[in-house]
Amino acid sequence: MQRISLKPGKHAYTMSRYYTPVATVEPGETFVVETQDGPDGTITSEQDKPSEKLNFAHANPETGPIEVAGAEPGDTLVVKIEDIQPLSEYAVTFIVRDFGGLVANSSTRLLNPPLEERVKLVRLKEGKVYWNDKISFPYQPFYGCIGTAPEQQAIDCMSPGNHGGNMDCPDCSVGNKVYLPVRVPGAYLFLGDVMATQGQGELCGTCGEHPAVGTVTVDLIKRKPIEWPRVESDTHIMCIGSAKPMEDAARIAYYELVQWIAEDYGFDPIEAYMLLSHIGECNIANMVDTLYSMVARCPKKYLTTK
Amino acid sequence: MQRISLKPGKHAYTMSRYYTPVATVEPGETFVVETQDGPDGTITSEQDKPSEKLNFAHANPETGPIEVAGAEPGDTLVVKIEDIQPLSEYAVTFIVRDFGGLVANSSTRLLNPPLEERVKLVRLKEGKVYWNDKISFPYQPFYGCIGTAPEQQAIDCMSPGNHGGNMDCPDCSVGNKVYLPVRVPGAYLFLGDVMATQGQGELCGTCGEHPAVGTVTVDLIKRKPIEWPRVESDTHIMCIGSAKPMEDAARIAYYELVQWIAEDYGFDPIEAYMLLSHIGECNIANMVDTLYSMVARCPKKYLTTK
Amino acid sequence: MQRISLKPGKHAYTMSRYYTPVATVEPGETFVVETQDGPDGTITSEQDKPSEKLNFAHANPETGPIEVAGAEPGDTLVVKIEDIQPLSEYAVTFIVRDFGGLVANSSTRLLNPPLEERVKLVRLKEGKVYWNDKISFPYQPFYGCIGTAPEQQAIDCMSPGNHGGNMDCPDCSVGNKVYLPVRVPGAYLFLGDVMATQGQGELCGTCGEHPAVGTVTVDLIKRKPIEWPRVESDTHIMCIGSAKPMEDAARIAYYELVQWIAEDYGFDPIEAYMLLSHIGECNIANMVDTLYSMVARCPKKYLTTK
Amino acid sequence: MQRISLKPGKHAYTMSRYYTPVATVEPGETFVVETQDGPDGTITSEQDKPSEKLNFAHANPETGPIEVAGAEPGDTLVVKIEDIQPLSEYAVTFIVRDFGGLVANSSTRLLNPPLEERVKLVRLKEGKVYWNDKISFPYQPFYGCIGTAPEQQAIDCMSPGNHGGNMDCPDCSVGNKVYLPVRVPGAYLFLGDVMATQGQGELCGTCGEHPAVGTVTVDLIKRKPIEWPRVESDTHIMCIGSAKPMEDAARIAYYELVQWIAEDYGFDPIEAYMLLSHIGECNIANMVDTLYSMVARCPKKYLTTK
Repeated sequence: MQRISLKPGKHAYTMSRYYTPVATVEPGETFVVETQDGPDGTITSEQDKPSEKLNFAHANPETGPIEVAGAEPGDTLVVKIEDIQPLSEYAVTFIVRDFGGLVANSSTRLLNPPLEERVKLVRLKEGKVYWNDKISFPYQPFYGCIGTAPEQQAIDCMSPGNHGGNMDCPDCSVGNKVYLPVRVPGAYLFLGDVMATQGQGELCGTCGEHPAVGTVTVDLIKRKPIEWPRVESDTHIMCIGSAKPMEDAARIAYYELVQWIAEDYGFDPIEAYMLLSHIGECNIANMVDTLYSMVARCPKKYLTTK
Repeated sequence: MQRISLKPGKHAYTMSRYYTPVATVEPGETFVVETQDGPDGTITSEQDKPSEKLNFAHANPETGPIEVAGAEPGDTLVVKIEDIQPLSEYAVTFIVRDFGGLVANSSTRLLNPPLEERVKLVRLKEGKVYWNDKISFPYQPFYGCIGTAPEQQAIDCMSPGNHGGNMDCPDCSVGNKVYLPVRVPGAYLFLGDVMATQGQGELCGTCGEHPAVGTVTVDLIKRKPIEWPRVESDTHIMCIGSAKPMEDAARIAYYELVQWIAEDYGFDPIEAYMLLSHIGECNIANMVDTLYSMVARCPKKYLTTK
Repeated sequence: MQRISLKPGKHAYTMSRYYTPVATVEPGETFVVETQDGPDGTITSEQDKPSEKLNFAHANPETGPIEVAGAEPGDTLVVKIEDIQPLSEYAVTFIVRDFGGLVANSSTRLLNPPLEERVKLVRLKEGKVYWNDKISFPYQPFYGCIGTAPEQQAIDCMSPGNHGGNMDCPDCSVGNKVYLPVRVPGAYLFLGDVMATQGQGELCGTCGEHPAVGTVTVDLIKRKPIEWPRVESDTHIMCIGSAKPMEDAARIAYYELVQWIAEDYGFDPIEAYMLLSHIGECNIANMVDTLYSMVARCPKKYLTTK
Repeated sequence: MQRISLKPGKHAYTMSRYYTPVATVEPGETFVVETQDGPDGTITSEQDKPSEKLNFAHANPETGPIEVAGAEPGDTLVVKIEDIQPLSEYAVTFIVRDFGGLVANSSTRLLNPPLEERVKLVRLKEGKVYWNDKISFPYQPFYGCIGTAPEQQAIDCMSPGNHGGNMDCPDCSVGNKVYLPVRVPGAYLFLGDVMATQGQGELCGTCGEHPAVGTVTVDLIKRKPIEWPRVESDTHIMCIGSAKPMEDAARIAYYELVQWIAEDYGFDPIEAYMLLSHIGECNIANMVDTLYSMVARCPKKYLTTK
């Protein structure tokens, strides 16, 4: 199996067509990919001061672009996440100045003094994340960043968008398929920012960040354009919208879900809209990045018209 | 058991201190309460045109105010929802002009033409909601409106707020406790707008609206003020924030949850903030009302400091 | 001339129909009205700590309701502001915890520490506001609060809305006509919160607050309903929208302006929309209250179709 | 004088470092620059259907990058706009599907039907813009797009940001100085999207778009970093913030203005904040692009501490 691994400093810091591919994979191919942690290895101790260590321009270093042979604009790239394993014994969660869900930041610019910074290391062991001796939760890793190159933009890796990017959506996890738009020849897939587990919102801005090794399988749906990223699990279909204000992210996510149900499941759009009033789900993926990401989902078991 | 039932036209159309109580209950008392449906009985056929039938000023008629003996400003009112049963065989879901999660409305005021109106009756039978012959989902009723009187405002029943109100939060359901602030002597509890089941957001603006009969138990926590409504289930604690834009609703919900965890579970607030980055959940309750409502929740099993 | 003056504690703290009118005026009548300052006389020294002095529930005490004889729901109330004079030698501007345009507040709820509080007295003298010995600006007083009673709500005086209220719009000033919707018999006009001069936004949340005496003339346009407040000066027509997020306030303001131009000046709405792209103006009235207020305006000189 | 003119198809469609400079200018140099119109010459008749003609990826073609000799990251680029003249007799204003200030769009994604499209040609003659035979307004041209290359991003020309870009701010006009951050060696200035006159907001999304020839002088302030674009006129200093929701754009604009007054005029920041409550102005530049732009301004005559 092909293994894609980059040396420090060789990662991508934007999602764009302006990089040379680091590897080429075939549709249907399963490969192994190593990723650096979100803070790019800069935060290693609970004594670190994040604002002095972290280079925001290099946050969320990506492994990529990975060229997918034969991918053309207008196709959909399918990324099946087969497995993710940690490459360190500890993951890091921290508060850094002017960043996070309950603080003033560079977009919501206020005169209040900043919150104190803090670093916490959590232990990863035997499928669990240890907050401390008494509290642990399951290790449920996912790609905080997953996306393709936009047609002409170069988008920094702190930003989500209709190309995917830094959605920080815990559903981009093991066992699920992520559908991404292809907008440049070769698709140019980027992966990074694995986290150990994450609540809805990534409230303090970081969450169990660690280097990891994943196994993914890519495939193409030819001549099937999608506007925004989608996810499919065994039980649900999901659309992710990224925008500000947050209601715009929710509107995009639900609007795309209405289209998906109408196009692939035979409902008329207005009926899909009314049905989702009863069974649609919508939660925050991130409330900390340059755009907020919302996930709208629908249980597949109800989507029968026959 | 005391049964509170109002004749048509005798319901409250705002939550306020400016009504005479319709009943008085004691702390610890369990009582039965009938509620009218959200559209106030105006939509009864799939041929109805909602904008011609519905009086928005009388939407979400409330049973109340119910006076709670001994309640004083600064207390918290606990409303345990024991049971809800439908009082009709059908519930109604409809699209009405300028209202709903994916349309322009009186707040997001745009020049686009309106969406077509539509009415759908769903059958309620043996614990299920029948969308049609092939699709049914569980009957999971809850109070779309539940709140207390504000100190001096009279708030219409289309609006949620820190008094509760039209939060359209499916967690205000059977088996759960809803905590509400007491801001006037006697608390003045209002209940209404039962729905048969609801997704996250109440996407099209309505959802299985029907008259119902509920059984609730009230209690008081003396001299314990809360700023915003809270909900507790067997497994989770939850805070509901209502605001626009939606991120402000999410901020309020998570901020209140941080306070709750800090005050009642012995965490320092910054640690609670970082912990919720890992295990907090936050979904939309409504994205259609005058304010959006978001629910932030935390599994109780992780909240141990000992 | 009738003079309306209330003793301390006799002011209204909501705009609502639930008060007994303090006076009755006839259409066409000119009368004098005294108003208390926004902080209700609680901040009098630069040594005061606002959060310890101010009672938010009593902020912006209103003189009213003033009943307008013959006013009926569906009419428009015209309030011509003839004159405003200060009733004190000093006006007060202050920063109070969790309030203001560049700080976290009860809606944008964050964990940052609060900004320091501060009080500044500015001198009012000979038509000028003296910031200090070197800086002075013209005294341009206006009603921060001006509105009518809603149909059934009681809205606190910190809130603007489609009834007017706490819009903090400097265009509600001497020489201009303010148009307000009539939603209850007698209209129930409320006036208060005169400020000495104000920039666009009332950035720090307060601005030259002082008691004042005004002269106003009221009139009625019978059977002419308006949805939102409007203002007319010698040169401009203006619509004020209040909402969150701020773009919704701007959308309302411009939408209403499109309607006004279409209805009264003979343009088709789409042409009005395109014309305003060239000559419309839109600035912030307040960015500190429970809803933001935006003013959209159009020079009357361009509104000719003949 | 150097004249910079590009052939069709040779313009830049993002602001980025990934283009080769089209010209190099020296600090202090005055030069002439031709710009294409915003719709890239695609809309030429009132019978055109914009959604069939316009290529959004090529909207707002830029003349650039123009390299400024000696510019280094951390400097500020000063662009004095000396003159702008039209290169056509007509300018075009149009409504295109899913774009504009009072319609649903790709960010505020709704199910409403779209507004009808429409094209209007306005005549440019003798310093005036002729809406029709009866209505004309002054020709007040400005650069809708003006910006520098970001450090690593490539930002499409429909987007404003802290690099400048598509701010659609009428203050970037003849006689004023625009200050832009330098983030790459050579600064990489881009200019485009001249409009004939524009209201506050560019309400319908377009506004007198036309090719033009401008005369500008550039200069550098060495080792003076600024976070966001600034403008200076004879009478005012101004900061432009671009963000969503709109209140975040206003917060950025006023926050930056507080910093400017504090740093260059000797006020303490809290005093500047309180002073701007009295004399600050803040209006919409655009309410139609991917981010909203707000301009906060302060009259220079009040900024004296001596």
